[in-house]
Formats: sequence, C-alpha cells, structure tokens
Amino acid sequence: MKGYLITFEGPDGAGKTTVINELIKQLPKEIQKKTIITREPGGSKISENIRTIILDPANKEMDDRTETLLYAAQRSQHVSEVIRPALAAGKIVLSDRFIDSSLAYQGVGRDLGVEAVKQINDFGTGGLEPDLTIFLDLDPATGLARIEKERAGQEDRLEQEKLAFHKKVYAGYIDLLKRYPDRIKKVDANLPIEEVAANSVKIIRKQLPDIFM
Amino acid sequence: MKGYLITFEGPDGAGKTTVINELIKQLPKEIQKKTIITREPGGSKISENIRTIILDPANKEMDDRTETLLYAAQRSQHVSEVIRPALAAGKIVLSDRFIDSSLAYQGVGRDLGVEAVKQINDFGTGGLEPDLTIFLDLDPATGLARIEKERAGQEDRLEQEKLAFHKKVYAGYIDLLKRYPDRIKKVDANLPIEEVAANSVKIIRKQLPDIFM
Repeated sequence: MKGYLITFEGPDGAGKTTVINELIKQLPKEIQKKTIITREPGGSKISENIRTIILDPANKEMDDRTETLLYAAQRSQHVSEVIRPALAAGKIVLSDRFIDSSLAYQGVGRDLGVEAVKQINDFGTGGLEPDLTIFLDLDPATGLARIEKERAGQEDRLEQEKLAFHKKVYAGYIDLLKRYPDRIKKVDANLPIEEVAANSVKIIRKQLPDIFM
Repeated sequence: MKGYLITFEGPDGAGKTTVINELIKQLPKEIQKKTIITREPGGSKISENIRTIILDPANKEMDDRTETLLYAAQRSQHVSEVIRPALAAGKIVLSDRFIDSSLAYQGVGRDLGVEAVKQINDFGTGGLEPDLTIFLDLDPATGLARIEKERAGQEDRLEQEKLAFHKKVYAGYIDLLKRYPDRIKKVDANLPIEEVAANSVKIIRKQLPDIFM
C-alpha cells in the first residue's frame, strides 16, 4: 500500500486552507478515510513551536538565513514525525505548504538562491519530494488584498511583507512551475472555492490515478 | 580596530561558563572594557527562544536533523545580531560554545557527519570562523558526573543523553583538535578554575598577541 504526498502552494491569500477543506469533501468516502490534512510551518508539536517563532511579528530582527533554517527545521520534524509515518501506513497526505514555499519565499523572495535553500531542506527531509503539487494561482496583489481584508492588523510576520516581496515570491513560484512541470500543476484560484477544489480533484485523478483504484 | 571571536568548547560539565567568568577578571581592565560574553544556544532574543525548543526535555521526539537545523538557526541569528556587529565595533567576543559544538554533538554524536553539519552552519553564518577556540578538556564521564551532581533532575535534553553519546561527542572534539590544530587549543579542565582560566589567558596572549598591544 503506497502513500501519497500532495502539497498545496501559492501566494498568501490564495485560499489553500479553505480549498483543502473543501477538496477533501469532494473525495470518495473510502479515500477520505485514508487522507490526512497537515500544514506548514507546523504539523507537529515541535514544529508548531518553531512556527510561533517564525511568524511572530515581534521578531523583526530575524535574519533571512535564520528564517530559512527555521523553516527547514520545522519541515524536517514534520517529515520525520508526521509525513513519513503516514506515507509508510499508505495514507494520502495533503499538506498546506511544503518545500516549494521555502524555495519561493526564501530562495527567491529573500534572494538566498533556490539551490542553496533546496540543499538545506534536503538535509532535513532526506530529499523527500511531493508526488504532486497543486499551485493555487492568484495575482499576489489580489492575495494581499484578501489577507488585509480578512485579518487587518492580525497578519503574521511574512504576510506583513510589502507587495514587492510577494511579487518576487510569485515570480519564484512561476519559475518552479517551469522547473518541475511534471510535479507542479496550476489551478486558477480566482474561481469560486468549490470550483477550485473540483479542479484540484480533477488534477489528482489525472496525475495519481492509482489513488482511486 | 579589529574584533576577535574567541570560543570555548568542551563536553558538558567542563565548566565553560565558570571559566569564562573567571578569565575575564584576569584580563587587563582596558581589555575587559571591550570584551563581551555571549553563549550558545542563545545570545539574542530569537536565539534564546530557539534554545528553549532545543533543550526542553519534553521534546523527546526531536529528530536529529531538526536539532541540527535549530542549532544552525540560533547560530545564524546570534552571528547576524550579536557577533558580527560586535566584531565590526572592534570588540573581543567570548562565546560559550559555537560551531564546533554542532560538529562534535550533531556531526559525530548524532552521526550526521562533520562535513554535512559544517555546510548547514556555513550557510547560516556566512562561514564565520573563530579566531581562537579553547577546548576545555575533561573526561566525559567526569563531566557527566559533575552535571548530575550540580543539577540532578534539572538536566536539559542534551545533558540527559547517556555516557555513550557523550563519549562520541568527546571523540568528535579530539578529531576537531587534529583537524584545526592552529585554531583549537586544549586546556586541562581538571585543574582548579583559577588555573584553567589563567592557562586560557596564556593561550590567548600567545595566539592573539595583538589584543594586548
């Protein structure tokens, strides 16, 4: 029984969490039963503690390299404690963000380089790659406007970054789509949530048909 | 005005903190004035928060790679926020542990490899190396006995490791002494604290005479 890791990526405000929660409802019951939802940064007790440090808006002095290493640390723990055991048990793991977030946000957004950031992360995860990545495509300005509307004054440290940063992150994602065309598939996140979820399910069915057999 | 980074290493229980506090008293007043004492894991607010996660005995599920990345993260922040600014201001920085701790504890003690752990750390620190490292040499069994006596039941997650681990760490340090003979100098930590401090000052005078000019 093979497990599958499906990750969801996109700019802040693309609606990843909502889409995942809607998507799981659209899956057949027997598949729902063996599916788990998890998220980054976080996913385990230790990783959630690391998340608190990463996202705390009070941590204004955080160095970009520290940020990168903390994301890699929470991911390493998330993989060893949650994802690998679930995959070994034949589960389908839906993760709200994974390695591509670090490549786009720290590799491109923070100018640290995709290769350097990938190397740090591979050390932590043993090079685990998702079976499929769904990129929720949304203009970063629209995403940022959604965030500001939904939680004005409650934005985390990354969300507080200016539009210029979010545009770089978006460009980073577009670059990753070209780099991993077989693994990363794009879904239009401007559509109503049910449609975004339905389109994501379609992609999962097409890319990973074995799940549905 | 050049700054200097002098680091203190050794097994748990070697008395690093006490030695540093004694040693600074033995330095000429004008040198004391431009000397700062710092420590790892920690040394800045963000790094101290990371320290809490690393050392918390409750975090039993922590993966060795997560531990390595967290040490590298706190070090990255410590360097960018404390050490580099101090060096730029011509200070003498005495650090209670630095990169060699990761090489010995995670590289050798956790079997992750000295080169792999060095690479992760170099990403965080930009490859900053100490000008001098004083290794407080103490048999790991003696160090562990000191720790157990001083704070029975209060040991942190790393101190709680069994003797076999601490022996590997010690072997790691001995290997580092051979690897960096010009940078790392050994002091016998079995002697009374004043003598350990005096011998350390002697080494600093010999290795970094410019400080005293």
